[in-house]
Amino acid sequence: MIQTQIGKIILDKNSFAIVSHTSPDGDSMGSMLAVYNQLLSMGKNADVFVEEDLPMKYSFLSGFGSIKKYSISNKSYECVFVLDCGDIDRLGLCKDVLNRADVVINIDHHISNTLFGHLNLVDSNASSVGEIIYQLFKVNGYHISKEIAGCLYTSIVSDTGGFKYSNTTSITLSIVGDLINTNIDFSDIYNKIFNVKTLSQIKLMSKVTSTLELHFDNRVSILILTENMLKECNANEDDASEFINIGRDIEEVEVAILIKEKNINSCRVSLRSKKYVDVAKIASMFGGGGHIRAAGCTIEGNIDDVKESLLTILKNYFNAVI
Amino acid sequence: MIQTQIGKIILDKNSFAIVSHTSPDGDSMGSMLAVYNQLLSMGKNADVFVEEDLPMKYSFLSGFGSIKKYSISNKSYECVFVLDCGDIDRLGLCKDVLNRADVVINIDHHISNTLFGHLNLVDSNASSVGEIIYQLFKVNGYHISKEIAGCLYTSIVSDTGGFKYSNTTSITLSIVGDLINTNIDFSDIYNKIFNVKTLSQIKLMSKVTSTLELHFDNRVSILILTENMLKECNANEDDASEFINIGRDIEEVEVAILIKEKNINSCRVSLRSKKYVDVAKIASMFGGGGHIRAAGCTIEGNIDDVKESLLTILKNYFNAVI
Repeated sequence: MIQTQIGKIILDKNSFAIVSHTSPDGDSMGSMLAVYNQLLSMGKNADVFVEEDLPMKYSFLSGFGSIKKYSISNKSYECVFVLDCGDIDRLGLCKDVLNRADVVINIDHHISNTLFGHLNLVDSNASSVGEIIYQLFKVNGYHISKEIAGCLYTSIVSDTGGFKYSNTTSITLSIVGDLINTNIDFSDIYNKIFNVKTLSQIKLMSKVTSTLELHFDNRVSILILTENMLKECNANEDDASEFINIGRDIEEVEVAILIKEKNINSCRVSLRSKKYVDVAKIASMFGGGGHIRAAGCTIEGNIDDVKESLLTILKNYFNAVI
Repeated sequence: MIQTQIGKIILDKNSFAIVSHTSPDGDSMGSMLAVYNQLLSMGKNADVFVEEDLPMKYSFLSGFGSIKKYSISNKSYECVFVLDCGDIDRLGLCKDVLNRADVVINIDHHISNTLFGHLNLVDSNASSVGEIIYQLFKVNGYHISKEIAGCLYTSIVSDTGGFKYSNTTSITLSIVGDLINTNIDFSDIYNKIFNVKTLSQIKLMSKVTSTLELHFDNRVSILILTENMLKECNANEDDASEFINIGRDIEEVEVAILIKEKNINSCRVSLRSKKYVDVAKIASMFGGGGHIRAAGCTIEGNIDDVKESLLTILKNYFNAVI
């Protein structure tokens, strides 16, 4: 089976690179460092590479301090692990390291994976790459240390949204049960990933939520984020990345909108829906796209213009569907 | 074993009452209705009682519509299940039904449980009563229907804070895995319990977070809730029950304070800490109490007076401990 083939390569080879997609998230960070820690424990040489600055919220992960920023070089590796990456273009700069590798091992859970590796361990039923790595380690008889368990827990808890997304299965939970039995402080990890906020985020949340408007019998929520708010709160756009959920989580709301002012003549719009409105369709009317329940677009005009454009479309939409 | 003894009573008896503590939470609601649905499926007569108005957020639970508000009567039951209740005084009015029962079965997970039942199934290692009820049902060979699974999932996810509290064990997760295999929409239940907010809550959150103050190098956060805010947002105190976490979740904060104005001369104060400050001690200085990490007290004075009193104490405290 493919897991034992990968196990054999790990035994045979000595120098490894580990890469993942740009803008690494909890699953990519956790699974890269799980593989890294395992290789190190077996006396192998391994480098973990990222393209850009590291997300500091994962600094508690074992091995975080050893992660390197990739720069084009002639260094070659016997084996490259590519994790949580559906196609090689999502690797950004790090794609370069694949050109000088004997073996590329592609481990992923995206259904769209292009199977670009020499070996492809792709399971779209897995909640996360962390879940696949756990099984890879178990099949090969590796001991799951507390350090590795912390990495894999981070992967799984991140990609399942704290075990609430429908990709969570009884297999996922059984794996997590095994991980927490290593005595990791999972409560602390959970808080670090989901709850810890900066002062800037709280200030910004207060300002953004104060703009809340509801329309069409509370079925549409609109929140506004201006450049001025970001300045006043010493915040950046990342600090606002979850705010659209505030509008979406209001009980009667079907469509949640977050309008971010890009400049005086242009706004970035995020759209979410709960049950019956196809927001990808709405976004596409403005040249944007996305999924049925989560989409985005850029609309020309100032905030008031953009709000009016969206409300006009939504008015027709609600009149048509209800 | 006690589970089979309880199973025998369920078989032998015909009329059951099911009660829990006042101000029922997710664990009490879920476990009461799990037992109710099981008894009904066995052709038994069962009544679920609460003392006060039902928390509507649990209205999705199977059997919710059959729950009755207790009123003193002479009706007697062969068997009363008391769930999630450490002592009988926490039953409020519903305590009365125990006086006319042949058998009282006490199922709980509080370490302080006074073992007041004829049969006491008390396991302080269980995350929730839902977890204990699951095991009771399994030992007796009951089929876990989708409806019952929804109730038990609600119990467990509530008392573990979405599987993030340290009371979550591999046993908990293995049970939850079994429950979600019944095809319940656990993602939807999770959202209903933790994420759905009312418009009043969002408006109130915006106002309360706009009062955020940080002191002592960001180690102390203070949030204010006034009577006026409640009025303006058409909200009640319950809507603000989680707001102290906003202050606590700021990364550098050790002590989070929420000051609720009761009237012009008195405030209710909630205190939380993360790692080293004993907030029960601080609360006790004002005649209040609680736990090391979560406590409360009432302080005479207007909001500014109360803030000053707390900051004076905290100043000494930080000078002493750091």
